[in-house]
Amino acid sequence: MTQQLSGACVIAQSGGPTAVINASAYGVIRTALDSPQITAVYGAEYGILGVLNEALFDLSQEDAAELEMLLYTPSSELGSCRYKLADPARDQKDYHRILEVLQKYNIRYFFLNGGNDSMDTCHKVSNFLDEAGYECRVIGIPKTIDNDLCGTDHAPGYGSAAKYIATTTAEVQKDAYVYDVGTVVILEIMGRDAGWLTGAAALASLSGAPPDLIYLPEVPFEMERFLAEVTAIYQQKGKCLVAVSEGIKYADGQYVSEGKASASDGFGHAMLGGLAYNLAEEVREACGAKVRGIELSLLQRCSAHLAAKTDVDEAFSAGVFAVQQALAGATGKMVSLQRDENTESYRCRMVLEDLALAANLVKKVPPEWICQEGNFVTPEFYDYVLPLIQGENPRPVQDGLPRFAKLKKIRVNLSQT
Amino acid sequence: MTQQLSGACVIAQSGGPTAVINASAYGVIRTALDSPQITAVYGAEYGILGVLNEALFDLSQEDAAELEMLLYTPSSELGSCRYKLADPARDQKDYHRILEVLQKYNIRYFFLNGGNDSMDTCHKVSNFLDEAGYECRVIGIPKTIDNDLCGTDHAPGYGSAAKYIATTTAEVQKDAYVYDVGTVVILEIMGRDAGWLTGAAALASLSGAPPDLIYLPEVPFEMERFLAEVTAIYQQKGKCLVAVSEGIKYADGQYVSEGKASASDGFGHAMLGGLAYNLAEEVREACGAKVRGIELSLLQRCSAHLAAKTDVDEAFSAGVFAVQQALAGATGKMVSLQRDENTESYRCRMVLEDLALAANLVKKVPPEWICQEGNFVTPEFYDYVLPLIQGENPRPVQDGLPRFAKLKKIRVNLSQT
Repeated sequence: MTQQLSGACVIAQSGGPTAVINASAYGVIRTALDSPQITAVYGAEYGILGVLNEALFDLSQEDAAELEMLLYTPSSELGSCRYKLADPARDQKDYHRILEVLQKYNIRYFFLNGGNDSMDTCHKVSNFLDEAGYECRVIGIPKTIDNDLCGTDHAPGYGSAAKYIATTTAEVQKDAYVYDVGTVVILEIMGRDAGWLTGAAALASLSGAPPDLIYLPEVPFEMERFLAEVTAIYQQKGKCLVAVSEGIKYADGQYVSEGKASASDGFGHAMLGGLAYNLAEEVREACGAKVRGIELSLLQRCSAHLAAKTDVDEAFSAGVFAVQQALAGATGKMVSLQRDENTESYRCRMVLEDLALAANLVKKVPPEWICQEGNFVTPEFYDYVLPLIQGENPRPVQDGLPRFAKLKKIRVNLSQT
Repeated sequence: MTQQLSGACVIAQSGGPTAVINASAYGVIRTALDSPQITAVYGAEYGILGVLNEALFDLSQEDAAELEMLLYTPSSELGSCRYKLADPARDQKDYHRILEVLQKYNIRYFFLNGGNDSMDTCHKVSNFLDEAGYECRVIGIPKTIDNDLCGTDHAPGYGSAAKYIATTTAEVQKDAYVYDVGTVVILEIMGRDAGWLTGAAALASLSGAPPDLIYLPEVPFEMERFLAEVTAIYQQKGKCLVAVSEGIKYADGQYVSEGKASASDGFGHAMLGGLAYNLAEEVREACGAKVRGIELSLLQRCSAHLAAKTDVDEAFSAGVFAVQQALAGATGKMVSLQRDENTESYRCRMVLEDLALAANLVKKVPPEWICQEGNFVTPEFYDYVLPLIQGENPRPVQDGLPRFAKLKKIRVNLSQT
């Protein structure tokens, strides 16, 4: 397996975008373009669909300077999809098609950048190609703002989202606390299964503008207790800022975001407004305050203008490392970020881990990082997140606005290659 | 009136906060502290209430470096209020109380920083003090993200909000356009009466990521036409990004944000989610797309991390100018920003205008700056806004997070002064 393997490579971006997933793509593309063993560098349009549909961009035709702009461009520039491959034990059609396309284009290096679903896809594709006897090195590159990926200290994309959330929470706190007459503001933050993003709101305390309460999916939610806690702070300070995860659940496992609608009128209207609006309505009824619900929505995953330099650098390095390791013979692995626990200052290195470690599992916030009352995080949580949000990405600005990568996206035409 | 007038000054911040209202306060405070004629510099806690309640901070006791941090601190650091003075023709109680406090503290300079309501307050206070024969120079300093203030080319606060909106729209467009399967995203932007903020979303086109449609309050809204326009773009591109103003109204004057709730179920639930959610639901029904509603909410007015340097500089200069003009004898005026129309590059100077020009009036987007179809803005709109969003404010960052001003806020104790 460690012999020189010559052939083309393909990079596919998968799942929900982040502020830095393009930095990983750039790490792969730049390194691949510079590697003599790699004969062509293809980008799959719309993730794995680009392979299935033979919709591949020839990235060697892009301007080098524009490719570099991927370091500052949010979202997945090659496109993403919500398509999930079937279980190969039941349906191998897609896998045969992938093999067919890889063979046709002599693709020997396959890089997929995504979250736990994508690591699962990598795992299945890698196994299938192995069994089919087609030599192709498959490496997964982690990406998720949710940070719920197992097998890695953290996932590229999380640091920038956490920085955005902490910064925005601090700014909103200043605004929410501005009036003499009290206001309660409820910030809804992403994280269906884990509270990594919502916990990051606590870092606003370093700007002197913390939220008062934080509710994570790891702690069973009790509406009465929540209302009592908000009301107590509101009565004491005349103001209250609350950060809630979209994924908070009652003890019986039901999402709070689903709860009120059916209970209240059966029309499902409560769902329209989302969790923040519904909790705002509950708080308004409970304590009579002026309440505002704010959902950070897509903003928390696409705000490249607030990307953490540390995160951008790590995302890029993960892409570089993936190509280097594949060239050296690795396959069926994912890039993992390992934090050096023995140094005072933050240090992180890349290693390879088994794809199975990450596939379809969810990493939650450890219980000991959540305060006993279940409504804030502990100093250990700060220690974990703070290094990940450091550094300002020196993003290019033109006319006062972000300058994104402009790729030509020229489709591969095999007859010409 | 132009003789030397010695005495204390007070600065009050009013209305909804902006990213740069503290820069104007700093302009006033710094200039006042450096002016020998001004014997004390007070900050009113919670706007005009601070005067009424005799809740005044002695700003001479603040560290100079912390005061300077006001240039990078969002929201109104002295606090704001929603209190509106009565019409003095009906009730002069508040005005007599204001006079009493001004006399007690020998306040001879009164600066109020706010929107059209605040200019009205300035106007009334100024007239009352004149009639009472108490010499006090009253100057209004404009501030509003909405930019709907008459008597000035634009209002400090607008440029930074416009920059935030344009940047965020560009980033959201990249995200909304990422999938193979279409998505419609509806961005709800502030502006109850005027479309200045919503129109700024168009500038995202300079990042290559424009919204497809823009709906302003200046154009009567037709739901059927809106749905047809969104559906047409969705069917053509498989995606659509729409910017709507919170203030869009039907031809009969009813706000669209109020319309559906009572019409649909009478429970008022539709209002909870806000306009973006309701329009998202309408679009979902109309074209079957996956639709996401995003309300920019407070974020668009408190995002100091994206403040435009031009805006910060002008906000600061407006405060400086207010003090300089008051020292020179002006009173009963507001600071107005005048754009030099005769130069190729943007130039803006400060002048004084009558407070009555701005009080309680609303400046709308001119009809000729809105395209004929009523669903986008014209190049003239770009020309107007673009200079206002220029420049990055070199904000201090500590631990990867914004470093805000830390004021001691020491209450004035007259027995010590």
